Amino acid sequence: MLKRGAAAAIAPFLVMDVIARANARQAALAPGAPGIIRMEVGQPGTGAPRGAVQAASRALLAGEPLGYTEAFGLRSLREAISRHYGRFYDGLALAPDRIAVTTGASGGFLLAFLSAFDIGDRIAMAAPYYPPYLNILHALGMVPVVLPTAASTRFQPTIAMLERLAAREGLPDGLIVASPCNPAGTMLQAVDLAALAQWCDTHGVRLVSDEIYHGLTWDFPAATAASFSDSAIVINSFSKYWSMTGWRVGWMVLPHDLLGAAERLKQNMFISAPHISQVAAEAAFACTDEITANLARYRRSRDFLLHELPQVGFPALSPAQGAFYLYADISQHGSDSLSFADRILETAGVAVTPGIDFDAERGHEFLRFSYCGPEADMREAPSRLALLGA
Amino acid sequence: MLKRGAAAAIAPFLVMDVIARANARQAALAPGAPGIIRMEVGQPGTGAPRGAVQAASRALLAGEPLGYTEAFGLRSLREAISRHYGRFYDGLALAPDRIAVTTGASGGFLLAFLSAFDIGDRIAMAAPYYPPYLNILHALGMVPVVLPTAASTRFQPTIAMLERLAAREGLPDGLIVASPCNPAGTMLQAVDLAALAQWCDTHGVRLVSDEIYHGLTWDFPAATAASFSDSAIVINSFSKYWSMTGWRVGWMVLPHDLLGAAERLKQNMFISAPHISQVAAEAAFACTDEITANLARYRRSRDFLLHELPQVGFPALSPAQGAFYLYADISQHGSDSLSFADRILETAGVAVTPGIDFDAERGHEFLRFSYCGPEADMREAPSRLALLGA
Repeated sequence: MLKRGAAAAIAPFLVMDVIARANARQAALAPGAPGIIRMEVGQPGTGAPRGAVQAASRALLAGEPLGYTEAFGLRSLREAISRHYGRFYDGLALAPDRIAVTTGASGGFLLAFLSAFDIGDRIAMAAPYYPPYLNILHALGMVPVVLPTAASTRFQPTIAMLERLAAREGLPDGLIVASPCNPAGTMLQAVDLAALAQWCDTHGVRLVSDEIYHGLTWDFPAATAASFSDSAIVINSFSKYWSMTGWRVGWMVLPHDLLGAAERLKQNMFISAPHISQVAAEAAFACTDEITANLARYRRSRDFLLHELPQVGFPALSPAQGAFYLYADISQHGSDSLSFADRILETAGVAVTPGIDFDAERGHEFLRFSYCGPEADMREAPSRLALLGA
Repeated sequence: MLKRGAAAAIAPFLVMDVIARANARQAALAPGAPGIIRMEVGQPGTGAPRGAVQAASRALLAGEPLGYTEAFGLRSLREAISRHYGRFYDGLALAPDRIAVTTGASGGFLLAFLSAFDIGDRIAMAAPYYPPYLNILHALGMVPVVLPTAASTRFQPTIAMLERLAAREGLPDGLIVASPCNPAGTMLQAVDLAALAQWCDTHGVRLVSDEIYHGLTWDFPAATAASFSDSAIVINSFSKYWSMTGWRVGWMVLPHDLLGAAERLKQNMFISAPHISQVAAEAAFACTDEITANLARYRRSRDFLLHELPQVGFPALSPAQGAFYLYADISQHGSDSLSFADRILETAGVAVTPGIDFDAERGHEFLRFSYCGPEADMREAPSRLALLGA
């Protein structure tokens, strides 16, 4: 047998296994039996906004060839994203030239890491984290440096943590932040993000800000790193706020010094993001009514679950300031989140994600609940979980 | 200023600059003046087949949510690709489980290289080559090893070249082959591909076979490496034969020992290929009439240019056995293909790609003509080129 690459050793997304098990259990149910409630998935149950779908339909009916676009995407979409920054972030002016349309946020991370970092570079991030940060870095021969966080800092990194890391092991080459974050749903205040950006610029640490959950915020609006640093890389996507996961279209805001590198990498590794998805994404900006309705639904589900889950055995919940996740400390139920998630699926018919997907060290004491599913399911979930007697 | 990654130093696709210059020249033309003839682009002027577009339209009209698919793609598409192997390659049986739907061939290369190779591994390929092979390998910290080829081996690698390389520098870790190849449009005979596959298996060298131009063959059908080796990785796409470039959907055939690695990498780096593109791709298999008409057009343009170009100063053409490229030895016109391509654009209004994009060493004596554009343009090109007095 031939060799495999070291990248082959990266971890799977455990949530994929949970999804597969939930699908299997759903398929095995008797006809008419209540279905599995899906709180493990990180994608909205809704599809793209109608206006986005209609724009895609029109392009198809018009017989447009829909060939490759420029590597950084359709000019009109880059301009629409630029205008979005003006509207969404208090008039922030960002030139379309600094905006690159990507193949989802996933494509953005790959370009960000390869353009900014070298093999062996150390990139810091809070734990719990979105698993692909760590896995993509590993696959590229870079070194994730995990900063353990807790509810006391809302699972977000602090300058104090970075200073301690620097004193102990030297400055990292990069820092990834996410606000709102997956899995905890917690946020950085604007003043804290500004301070982190400033600290990174002062110390020559490249900041990568994952802003994919912007717009899905329940206490205060999210600030963008682009407001505080011209050298930060911002990653965003149409997948969450605009509910367009399977279209695989997102964007990044690039610092001037990385534009050439990122464009060459994009030409060679992607050619361009899918053309029809770019057409749909541009139209999505106009679909405010539908997005507003989705947000209202998430907020109702969040408020309901924040009230009900503590009464059925999950009192220690993350603040749920944004995104559509609740991160529950389950240490009172033991320290094996994988088995506990299995038991919840088997006994209560609710699929949830064990925390070890997001934090190898301490995730055995946490579960992630996602509340982007149908509202009726979210309202039924607590009564099912109560049956656990947890 | 912060640092950039070493990957930032990879070369641009020069053809992108040629496209930009041709666009600028087209835009500057007086109204009514004859347009620029585009022989630089590697994408068909036609869009996706009508049946594929209609399938995408139907999915949109039906309001399907079009969320993420499984990492390896829609099961029904993987099964359709499996059946395609049976029809296209003399009944070859390939299990759908070995087929991964990718984000174009580009996504396939990234997964192939990361799953099979390590940082520092040496991967051999013929020069001239498709530039992203070399650039993606560089970006990932791998080492491209270029085998200079010439018209005498139809610009394809041979076992003798590999044996000489092995004697001189040791066995490579991998070998990339492409038949038909870009830019030369030349092919390996089935017996030669079989021998290369056998040599790779015998010597522990991982074979990566780029089969993106299969179906676009003018002398004999292309053989697939999957017929000769269970450890080879095959890369293919809906971009060329099915004319679906901007949809970003392709596939790979994976050896059993790389399935787990490639799936984990795909989950983390791509999540899935665009859902609507997968729906369209599945329908494309049924669009034989339209594909057949495209093939007939390419063949007529190829036959015409093979006859006419030698009469207007380009006598030394590659055999043009497949794809939609002619690779012309222009050494009689000097040794600066970049300036020569510029002169052709300025003087004759024909955009072509300088060979240095495909071969840094000897490409200054070659040009690539692409003949996938409108047939009327292809028929006009030789008379324009004649005006060069070349």
